[in-house]
Amino acid sequence: MKALVYHGPGQKAWETVPDPTIEAATDVIVKITSSTICGTDLHILKGDVPEVKPGTILGHEAVGVVVEKGSAVTTIEVGDRVLVSAITSCGRCRFCKEGHYGLCTGGGGWIFGHLIDGLQAEHARVPFADTSVYKVPDALSDEQVLFLADILPTAFEVGVLNGGIEPGDTVAIVGAGPIGLAAVMTAKLYTPAHIVAIDIDDSRLERAREFGADVTINNSSDIAVAAVMELTDDLGADVAIEAVGIPSTFELCTELVRPGGRVANVGVHGHSVTLHLETLWIRDVTITTGLVDTSSTAKLLKLITDGKLDATAFATHRFPLSETMSAYDTFGDAAATHALKVVLEAEPVAHKPVPQGEELLATGV
Amino acid sequence: MKALVYHGPGQKAWETVPDPTIEAATDVIVKITSSTICGTDLHILKGDVPEVKPGTILGHEAVGVVVEKGSAVTTIEVGDRVLVSAITSCGRCRFCKEGHYGLCTGGGGWIFGHLIDGLQAEHARVPFADTSVYKVPDALSDEQVLFLADILPTAFEVGVLNGGIEPGDTVAIVGAGPIGLAAVMTAKLYTPAHIVAIDIDDSRLERAREFGADVTINNSSDIAVAAVMELTDDLGADVAIEAVGIPSTFELCTELVRPGGRVANVGVHGHSVTLHLETLWIRDVTITTGLVDTSSTAKLLKLITDGKLDATAFATHRFPLSETMSAYDTFGDAAATHALKVVLEAEPVAHKPVPQGEELLATGV
Amino acid sequence: MKALVYHGPGQKAWETVPDPTIEAATDVIVKITSSTICGTDLHILKGDVPEVKPGTILGHEAVGVVVEKGSAVTTIEVGDRVLVSAITSCGRCRFCKEGHYGLCTGGGGWIFGHLIDGLQAEHARVPFADTSVYKVPDALSDEQVLFLADILPTAFEVGVLNGGIEPGDTVAIVGAGPIGLAAVMTAKLYTPAHIVAIDIDDSRLERAREFGADVTINNSSDIAVAAVMELTDDLGADVAIEAVGIPSTFELCTELVRPGGRVANVGVHGHSVTLHLETLWIRDVTITTGLVDTSSTAKLLKLITDGKLDATAFATHRFPLSETMSAYDTFGDAAATHALKVVLEAEPVAHKPVPQGEELLATGV
Amino acid sequence: MKALVYHGPGQKAWETVPDPTIEAATDVIVKITSSTICGTDLHILKGDVPEVKPGTILGHEAVGVVVEKGSAVTTIEVGDRVLVSAITSCGRCRFCKEGHYGLCTGGGGWIFGHLIDGLQAEHARVPFADTSVYKVPDALSDEQVLFLADILPTAFEVGVLNGGIEPGDTVAIVGAGPIGLAAVMTAKLYTPAHIVAIDIDDSRLERAREFGADVTINNSSDIAVAAVMELTDDLGADVAIEAVGIPSTFELCTELVRPGGRVANVGVHGHSVTLHLETLWIRDVTITTGLVDTSSTAKLLKLITDGKLDATAFATHRFPLSETMSAYDTFGDAAATHALKVVLEAEPVAHKPVPQGEELLATGV
Repeated sequence: MKALVYHGPGQKAWETVPDPTIEAATDVIVKITSSTICGTDLHILKGDVPEVKPGTILGHEAVGVVVEKGSAVTTIEVGDRVLVSAITSCGRCRFCKEGHYGLCTGGGGWIFGHLIDGLQAEHARVPFADTSVYKVPDALSDEQVLFLADILPTAFEVGVLNGGIEPGDTVAIVGAGPIGLAAVMTAKLYTPAHIVAIDIDDSRLERAREFGADVTINNSSDIAVAAVMELTDDLGADVAIEAVGIPSTFELCTELVRPGGRVANVGVHGHSVTLHLETLWIRDVTITTGLVDTSSTAKLLKLITDGKLDATAFATHRFPLSETMSAYDTFGDAAATHALKVVLEAEPVAHKPVPQGEELLATGV
Repeated sequence: MKALVYHGPGQKAWETVPDPTIEAATDVIVKITSSTICGTDLHILKGDVPEVKPGTILGHEAVGVVVEKGSAVTTIEVGDRVLVSAITSCGRCRFCKEGHYGLCTGGGGWIFGHLIDGLQAEHARVPFADTSVYKVPDALSDEQVLFLADILPTAFEVGVLNGGIEPGDTVAIVGAGPIGLAAVMTAKLYTPAHIVAIDIDDSRLERAREFGADVTINNSSDIAVAAVMELTDDLGADVAIEAVGIPSTFELCTELVRPGGRVANVGVHGHSVTLHLETLWIRDVTITTGLVDTSSTAKLLKLITDGKLDATAFATHRFPLSETMSAYDTFGDAAATHALKVVLEAEPVAHKPVPQGEELLATGV
Repeated sequence: MKALVYHGPGQKAWETVPDPTIEAATDVIVKITSSTICGTDLHILKGDVPEVKPGTILGHEAVGVVVEKGSAVTTIEVGDRVLVSAITSCGRCRFCKEGHYGLCTGGGGWIFGHLIDGLQAEHARVPFADTSVYKVPDALSDEQVLFLADILPTAFEVGVLNGGIEPGDTVAIVGAGPIGLAAVMTAKLYTPAHIVAIDIDDSRLERAREFGADVTINNSSDIAVAAVMELTDDLGADVAIEAVGIPSTFELCTELVRPGGRVANVGVHGHSVTLHLETLWIRDVTITTGLVDTSSTAKLLKLITDGKLDATAFATHRFPLSETMSAYDTFGDAAATHALKVVLEAEPVAHKPVPQGEELLATGV
Repeated sequence: MKALVYHGPGQKAWETVPDPTIEAATDVIVKITSSTICGTDLHILKGDVPEVKPGTILGHEAVGVVVEKGSAVTTIEVGDRVLVSAITSCGRCRFCKEGHYGLCTGGGGWIFGHLIDGLQAEHARVPFADTSVYKVPDALSDEQVLFLADILPTAFEVGVLNGGIEPGDTVAIVGAGPIGLAAVMTAKLYTPAHIVAIDIDDSRLERAREFGADVTINNSSDIAVAAVMELTDDLGADVAIEAVGIPSTFELCTELVRPGGRVANVGVHGHSVTLHLETLWIRDVTITTGLVDTSSTAKLLKLITDGKLDATAFATHRFPLSETMSAYDTFGDAAATHALKVVLEAEPVAHKPVPQGEELLATGV
């Protein structure tokens, strides 16, 4: 089959590789029908994630159809259309039992395109299938559910839920890239009074407004703290969500937040930051970090199924799966192309309909 | 002054009574500009609430302007326009410190039109003013905030918050009168997947749809359980809210709710009910009861101020305050008049503007 | 092998039956080294649980050693000594993912000695082994962990955790049988100010005092409400735990509890009860029901391992496994024998030591 | 009267000052019977807290008897013996209504010995008495309740509650001074499996063991991380509490904590710290900061009243109030004197007994 293979920093190729095969009784093989590229893939290509070995197929977000299953798989059948999530759960370790699949110590966690071959490929081996994939209701297109593989649960769990957003809150979201926009979109589920998007790029802020931010601040000239204080009568934001991953944006969040407020870090950081405990020790703040667990995927899928959440606006560009190399060019030059997410589309595959009445069980909510 | 006085079961009059005066250093006197009638007032008139002594002025929901203040009042000034809430908080007892103002043991709780003179009057004495009234932002009309005095926080706290509604939930609300509709309206703050309104009156169900229910069930022929089970793949509703107050509707809630779900009772009950523990003991259900605390009033006021909540649709009829007797007729015959809430309007009163920047402090969120 | 077989109401026998065999790839076969009898087994023998078919082996609490494993079992090895819990978890359904194993819809839940053959036997087939058994640290005897199979997590989860006990609370526990005593024991983990045990049998109350109750009330003459009110300055208990399962004890709990308090029902009820909503609607009470999930078993096992919890006092009588019939006589006549739990002891079996450093992973906390 | 007056960095005197008088209707005047010195007082004397103006009486922890009351005080009488807490609550602002008295914006918060005259004096003016003092049950001595003024609620709220300690947890407490020891003592209320005390002074670690730590680590040679990892099978502590206030101890806490764990900062910091987000972003940690609210004081007082908590071991030295200068010497040289808390004792004062049955109301739990 063909797949996008990492060959060391700066090097990748769409090339022929062996088809994946069942390795454990809990595996399934999925024929990919839609995949996408994540900012993390760009980090890997820069060499920032040394655990990824040359020769690894990249990608950790996909929708596809099961074409083969291991002997111990009981809840998934050949022919099922499934969402393959960025996070794999062994279902047996202490962290999986607690719903912390991102911390799985039993062989799961973030493994696709990282520790094992990933999902930018014609086929993929999916471990621990019973506890790691989600059946897709027939009424939904691939594109309607594809972003549930990573950015929606990431923004929702690590930003919105860790941030403890409540109706009436003022929420400041620093960074209006795909993750920041997903935080804007999912923050709305709790009806905050204000969603304030902060970035240094006006076109992203325009997007943030389209996604639901009611206040946008271009912080090129360092006005964000003053603007948030004015909006909140000098109190500060109830919740600040960091969606960039650099020291200055994290520190901005700790300045924006009100006494008693929460800072939810979603950004992936490569450097340490300065935490001003000399002022923060007395301010009753809570700071959280986290990798997504995808424990909310079933809930978010239900909201999409019932028309309460629509993530299709993230799909700004579409490419045939065979043109994944071009898709990387477009996604990698987002400043010029304004790409949010690029969809990699393979041929649709005939699949079993999910019977009426199994949808809810399928989604798990 | 004039006021609506209770004279024993079935008897009331709009008559001249002495003006209220400051009795404690923590009191204020408010000139009422808007008031309204509650279903509870009808219960009192039926004789169902024997603690209400003949001679008591009725009413526990109003907006007005402070015209006099006691010597210990520090955060409220003469001239302030304020919401006077159904619940009074002494601010000093254990329950008030916990935010359970409805359980106040220091002289507060539900006292207006119950243990002391109420708010269907030209003026009213308001105890514990510093901890019991809310300054109203100038931009809002009386009608925009009037229903914060009771039905909105009641439905939100005792129904929605006790019910623990989360995004994606299926919420069944039994009873589509004013409280049930307020539950529909405030449940939406948490973006449930489905709000199912259940009643036996089609015109109320039509209203429920206008307020935001996406499924309505006329249960005249006892189809509600089957309909909810079909909607939820035989699982049941995540949350059931009782908003009627009779045994059959409470028992319906315990049949509608899924294993692991919650029943939030909001209705005022005059009789015991049968709890089927022989089936419920194993189903992991949670049942809550409660009187409103109005601890959420500041949050709800902020949502109204910021345009995220609009309760003006409850105001179906308006009367001059002097025609309160007619207003009772209209409200008491809701089956024919389709009245939800009747607004009793007095002359507006000049008041101090709430300075920009004090609004948030005023509202407390 | 030999096992205790149910032959319809009132009839049981210790008799020869076929050895169990692996039926699914996720099964293990366990040689039982210790088992015990539960009050539920007596209910079954009375015919109260018609789902139990004649021919079923009874029992749902055991410790043993794995002697055979299915092909899909990955975290358990032949030779491991394990606790077999009353609740089985498929690990794959929505409820198992939420930690609600008692509500498992994937073939688990309470199945031993109920829907499949149970654990009062020389060997037993244990389904879904990876997600349903717990490795036992070598340092602990069978008896130290045996009661983790049911009564400890039942009392802790359905009583203590559902009751939301906090340091300083006054906790009233109605019923001082094994479950009530386990509630006394595990309530202490949260350092309540008072644990009040209520029963009508002085010898049980004496036991309650030994287990940690500091106040005991013999309610033969209906003095419990008055006594609790006196203890709490007429407020009522913060938490009331029902550990009997009859209408009068449940109703007592709702009378004992303070405004804003919680009633946690643990008892198994055969009849409906009267819920006095005409007084409770305004008292802000929370009532919970539930079957144990055993989601706390790993935590409780850790507390036993670290010497913070000791449940061996429940073991009042010991019998060889071959004398299970006599053990039933003793347990069934607890009024005379004062039996709490009877331990059924088989020959010890050589087993693999749990390596130092795997204990925590084994226990999952 | 006599009082301990701050005269600028390094300068203090026990001298004659004017008696305090009622300034607001909500004030009371208290005759101090017992007071104590806090590490913060030493910081003030070093000049680290510039808001404290020369001429201010120091001290923020005391027990005494009310000798005069303002006209608006309703729940406190002349003659009542009361605990005067480090934190004052106006009872009216948004933060006080939420129980966040430490963030009071209405004139309270930490004001004694900081923004107004303090409690190391013969008499003191106590603002907002109704919402800021606690009646002391007769059965308790001054010394039994004195440490409720600050260190017990500080360690409990900012350490134990923010840390979310649960039964079975491994809790690492960095710093075994008075606050760290109070964290050890109050952590036990939740029955952790292990309390690990970490310090660089063996005599303090010996104290920690007396107070309830079961593991002590002298970290002079930087072995704490390795030791905690060994204890926890390389996982890390569930909760780490910082009780020192310097960068290295905070950073140690972030290294000690397990994935998914919590770091509760209690220490007062004068410098920023480095937060290693490059490793922590993926570890699901929660970091909290906070000033005490004293919202738990009533609960802790109840635990002392009922014999579940005994803080008298903190009182290592006693001085007559008139020898406060000597007491400062002893407390300031704790390395040599091993002082934990020094009690400043004035003559006892006759006071009204708290009537049986008002104790609970008095304590608020």
